[in-house]
Amino acid sequence: MRPQEIIAKKRDGGTLTADEINLFIDGVCDSTWADYQITALIMAMFIRGLDIGEQDAITKAMLYSGEVLDLSDVDRPVADKHSTGGVGDKTSLIIAPLAAACGLAVPMISGRGLGHTGGTLDKLESIQGFNVNLTTDQFKTVVKKCGYAMAGQTAEIAPADKKIYALRDATATVPYIPLIVASIMSKKLAEDLNALVLDVKTGAGAFMAKLEDSHALAEALVQTGKSFGVKTQAVISDMSQPLGMYVGNALEVYECLKILRGEAEPAMQATLDLSVELTARLLAMTGLADDMESAKAKCADALASGAALEKFRDNIELQTGDPHVCDDPDLLLAKDVVKVEIEAENAGVISSFDALAVGGAICDLGGGRVMAHDGIDHAVGFECSAFIGDEVAKGQALGTLYCRDRASAKPVIERIRGSYLMSGSGTEKIKLVVDVVS
Amino acid sequence: MRPQEIIAKKRDGGTLTADEINLFIDGVCDSTWADYQITALIMAMFIRGLDIGEQDAITKAMLYSGEVLDLSDVDRPVADKHSTGGVGDKTSLIIAPLAAACGLAVPMISGRGLGHTGGTLDKLESIQGFNVNLTTDQFKTVVKKCGYAMAGQTAEIAPADKKIYALRDATATVPYIPLIVASIMSKKLAEDLNALVLDVKTGAGAFMAKLEDSHALAEALVQTGKSFGVKTQAVISDMSQPLGMYVGNALEVYECLKILRGEAEPAMQATLDLSVELTARLLAMTGLADDMESAKAKCADALASGAALEKFRDNIELQTGDPHVCDDPDLLLAKDVVKVEIEAENAGVISSFDALAVGGAICDLGGGRVMAHDGIDHAVGFECSAFIGDEVAKGQALGTLYCRDRASAKPVIERIRGSYLMSGSGTEKIKLVVDVVS
Repeated sequence: MRPQEIIAKKRDGGTLTADEINLFIDGVCDSTWADYQITALIMAMFIRGLDIGEQDAITKAMLYSGEVLDLSDVDRPVADKHSTGGVGDKTSLIIAPLAAACGLAVPMISGRGLGHTGGTLDKLESIQGFNVNLTTDQFKTVVKKCGYAMAGQTAEIAPADKKIYALRDATATVPYIPLIVASIMSKKLAEDLNALVLDVKTGAGAFMAKLEDSHALAEALVQTGKSFGVKTQAVISDMSQPLGMYVGNALEVYECLKILRGEAEPAMQATLDLSVELTARLLAMTGLADDMESAKAKCADALASGAALEKFRDNIELQTGDPHVCDDPDLLLAKDVVKVEIEAENAGVISSFDALAVGGAICDLGGGRVMAHDGIDHAVGFECSAFIGDEVAKGQALGTLYCRDRASAKPVIERIRGSYLMSGSGTEKIKLVVDVVS
Repeated sequence: MRPQEIIAKKRDGGTLTADEINLFIDGVCDSTWADYQITALIMAMFIRGLDIGEQDAITKAMLYSGEVLDLSDVDRPVADKHSTGGVGDKTSLIIAPLAAACGLAVPMISGRGLGHTGGTLDKLESIQGFNVNLTTDQFKTVVKKCGYAMAGQTAEIAPADKKIYALRDATATVPYIPLIVASIMSKKLAEDLNALVLDVKTGAGAFMAKLEDSHALAEALVQTGKSFGVKTQAVISDMSQPLGMYVGNALEVYECLKILRGEAEPAMQATLDLSVELTARLLAMTGLADDMESAKAKCADALASGAALEKFRDNIELQTGDPHVCDDPDLLLAKDVVKVEIEAENAGVISSFDALAVGGAICDLGGGRVMAHDGIDHAVGFECSAFIGDEVAKGQALGTLYCRDRASAKPVIERIRGSYLMSGSGTEKIKLVVDVVS
């Protein structure tokens, strides 16, 4: 069957069979489908739609386009968290060691940042010597030894997704739920999981800003996970403002270490709360806790006892990083950055704090990538001192920019200042967990 | 404006502005749009639709993506014919010299064959030494000297169309009227015409088999021609069976020479009639004849006087071919071909004579291309002896295959035999000109 026949069928609104979808994904992998044929079909899928059977078939075909981890010799429940991405969202760095400390195995395959959203791998590389490029065997060994590993998607995991995602990004076909589901789930299902929790962001800084869209995505992800035999829940969490105290690679690792050390500042509470919420769901789903209440208590114990911090240290050592940051998080902070306080120009209540603008501003400073091959500056970032619903006086610090020099950071400072809107009357504080789909 | 923004707008059903369409076509020409972005947009256009304003804007952008001929120093009305392609359709080879003999200038930019449809350039290359690769200057010189020239689309004429058409062919996005119109008209409008006649085929062997589709295409082509200031008419002609007596490159040139020499056999009448119909419309549109009746009389005179044949001879000489074929058309026929008569297995009236099957069979013999870079065998082909509506006896010849050897031609013989269906009762003969749009 020629690519044109499959493309024409979807072009005219037909429903593709599993065989046709397999031919497509095979063609993506062995390059018998040209890139321009792949994008023509993807656009036809986007506009004409994919039903649940087609969505499952694409997910399955992409999953089996590559290697599937075999963690059957791991004697713990295997679980993972996936987030749809946000600004200041560093919960992976807490969830993985915390879950491991509570008895789970977490084979966390992560990504790099692009545009305003950060990437876990970039953050980890703020730790001197930390190696995120593990072979599959190395990855499994690290999971077995310390309970979790964090590495990039190898060429062996869901290679079809890698190619298709890059093409979707270039052809305005990313925001379509069945394709998003297939992309996320083909990678996560390759991790041989017992349980998966999804952190679906919503609000102005999220990939899907509208709650109804976030909800639809959460439902589709949970349904797909379950249909593949994985216990799956989704938390819809707020991304109308940055999450927690810091945005920026090294600063976010710093925040996580402060939390793991029991030294969380008030502005870090959101990061801690969301990390515990997501970890507790994994513990409850896998039977390591009877209910959410006991699961959260278990998390609190593992944080208070230092067990989670020790997992973090073990993992750094196994992934060849410098574990001294666990004892002295200040080691993560570059000595030669310039700190610029950004002050409120007027008194009022913060009614909006645009996460996208903050993420974009950090990207402008070199802290994120515009193109996939760009290098990044781990040291730059922003410390958030005020959030939506906070009342501020004129001249009060809204936050502090960490940059290389004040002069060149001027437009970035203005961009961040512009990310805040003030209102005269009261605006409520943001509710972090908006909804749960289970 | 990034390609993604333009793609997203059409993806969501928006109407593109002329500026956006110009950015697209510019991007096609300078390769700042990747092929996979072009096909994503084309698929979105195909499914979401293009309105008449967008269709005109694409036509215009593709037209001005390349060189536009300047024939202002030609002291005759400039006119051309374009056909949507068929099997045995060789009217260009008669229309061009006939129109030139009647006082028109015909700058005929033609194509090569692909699949079951032949191409004028391939046919012309059956004439020893005939050069279809002319520079723009050479092309204009030949038009001025003998009244017409026939050459391939240079890189300078509508380069955007060339690239886009190849991509549409690979992505099942060819059969969409606004894109067909833009493709055809961007090339024809580059010929600096006063008048254009379109031969839109209909029936089983046509690109658009259904009459209503052929009619819609004809209407769109005529409307576009007029909106660009060119007198335009369309003839909807039958392609449910091959046109005229021969299918195959050298054989079709042979048929045309027999007609130009006034030696037409009865089976060649359809070729002659359609050629005169189309030429006469050009004469009437440009004022070289008062009405269709006098235009047809003028054509008959130019054929009877040998004036059209002399134009054909002049053109061959100017395009470096061997003009002796004009005196002895048998020179076109290869001496070493094997002729195999195909006989009717049963008596009856021919109810169907599948042009696609015949074209495909000749292609199988090497007389056409499967891939664009294939070479072709000019000598092979088929002589049609019986047509739809003819009553044949058992064992009577349906036609004669011209092949290289009988053994290897066996499947082709069966395929052609299978292209005929017989019925017991009477089937009417085919009406050649189905409709006219003016």
